[in-house]
Amino acid sequence: MKVPYGRAEIREILTECVRLSGLREAYVEVVCTRGVPPPGSRDPRECENRLYAFAVPFVWIADPEKQERGLDAVIGRVQRIQPEAVDPTVKNYHWLDLVAGLYEAYDRGGETAILTDSEDNVVEGPGFNVFIVKDGNISTPSRGVLKGITRRTIIELASELGIPLEARAVTAAEVRAADEVFITSTAGGIMPVTQVDGAPVGDGTPGPVTLRLRDAYWELHRDPRYVTPVRYD
Amino acid sequence: MKVPYGRAEIREILTECVRLSGLREAYVEVVCTRGVPPPGSRDPRECENRLYAFAVPFVWIADPEKQERGLDAVIGRVQRIQPEAVDPTVKNYHWLDLVAGLYEAYDRGGETAILTDSEDNVVEGPGFNVFIVKDGNISTPSRGVLKGITRRTIIELASELGIPLEARAVTAAEVRAADEVFITSTAGGIMPVTQVDGAPVGDGTPGPVTLRLRDAYWELHRDPRYVTPVRYD
Repeated sequence: MKVPYGRAEIREILTECVRLSGLREAYVEVVCTRGVPPPGSRDPRECENRLYAFAVPFVWIADPEKQERGLDAVIGRVQRIQPEAVDPTVKNYHWLDLVAGLYEAYDRGGETAILTDSEDNVVEGPGFNVFIVKDGNISTPSRGVLKGITRRTIIELASELGIPLEARAVTAAEVRAADEVFITSTAGGIMPVTQVDGAPVGDGTPGPVTLRLRDAYWELHRDPRYVTPVRYD
Repeated sequence: MKVPYGRAEIREILTECVRLSGLREAYVEVVCTRGVPPPGSRDPRECENRLYAFAVPFVWIADPEKQERGLDAVIGRVQRIQPEAVDPTVKNYHWLDLVAGLYEAYDRGGETAILTDSEDNVVEGPGFNVFIVKDGNISTPSRGVLKGITRRTIIELASELGIPLEARAVTAAEVRAADEVFITSTAGGIMPVTQVDGAPVGDGTPGPVTLRLRDAYWELHRDPRYVTPVRYD
């Protein structure tokens, strides 16, 4: 697909979206679509790729109250679509596995789902990356996942704070045995997971590494390196 | 998901679609959507499932001229989404793998793509099921595929015509070594594939089993068991 605008134009479109919305706390999304082929054609080369963008009031995967106590996650039996079929590093809307995982989580008394690949490694959940902390070391899945912006920020923050972090295969068993588990997303930042499959993670409250990273993450929102100012009227 | 109408109502909606369109050769589609959750929610249980349907002029996966000589198919390196992630027996729009397969086919000089699973068994292509004929026996993949209506019709027809047919795992190597290959879809019926990966299938022309089934298939359109009449004004 060919994004019909350059980076500078997209930046302009997005800041304009936020400015026009008047929102001070916005969730901003930009999507490139393939477009539709002429009637009767099924040839994707005949589609004109398009771009749309919107700003809405900030969306939380988990509301701030839920984040205080931490989320109840279920490791789903549904597998995440494999990278050999759809490249997960390109954010996309192939979410039926993630939605099926959510239904499974609700059925099993959870609030969200963490999906695995065919080898029982955890990969990601509906809209978020996953991290575990064990004996002071952070790990996050390296394969079969979106390389999310918030995920990258955590990797940078861990480095700055001197906390060891490794991107590698992480098994479902490791998630269940972790001292801390947290998830990351543009929609909510860093969110503690305090129960997995109905059992507490560590002592069942948000852990110190998670909270330290969360504070550092929100602190970055005041850092000019990470901020694009919007000139409201 | 909960389809918001019963079978009789859907039949009424679809015949009404065709009647209103005035089309004598229509492609009719009915889709159940999850719907959208309230603003700010990501909970799929809060969506109101909906149904839409449309009739358009008949769509051919391959136009009749192309069907006469047979299609050039490429066995894609992209894998089809695995059944453990998304149930292929429920027709859905998770097509990024199929579209990527199409691009790969075009790049390699083909016209359409046949995708495999992680074990190099062929499964399906963009909107169609796959059949091979070897030594008078028909085979079609049993797993990882939509159980298409046209596929089922072929299974019934083969039985009526006394041609042995087995639904089983079919390897990519078997497709390349087949006497005949054909694909089936509502959008086009039974279509011969006369080249696979740039090499001719059999003698490179549509084979006798394929043509016999194709004739029998179109013949069925006059059989009241398979026909829903539309009362045009």
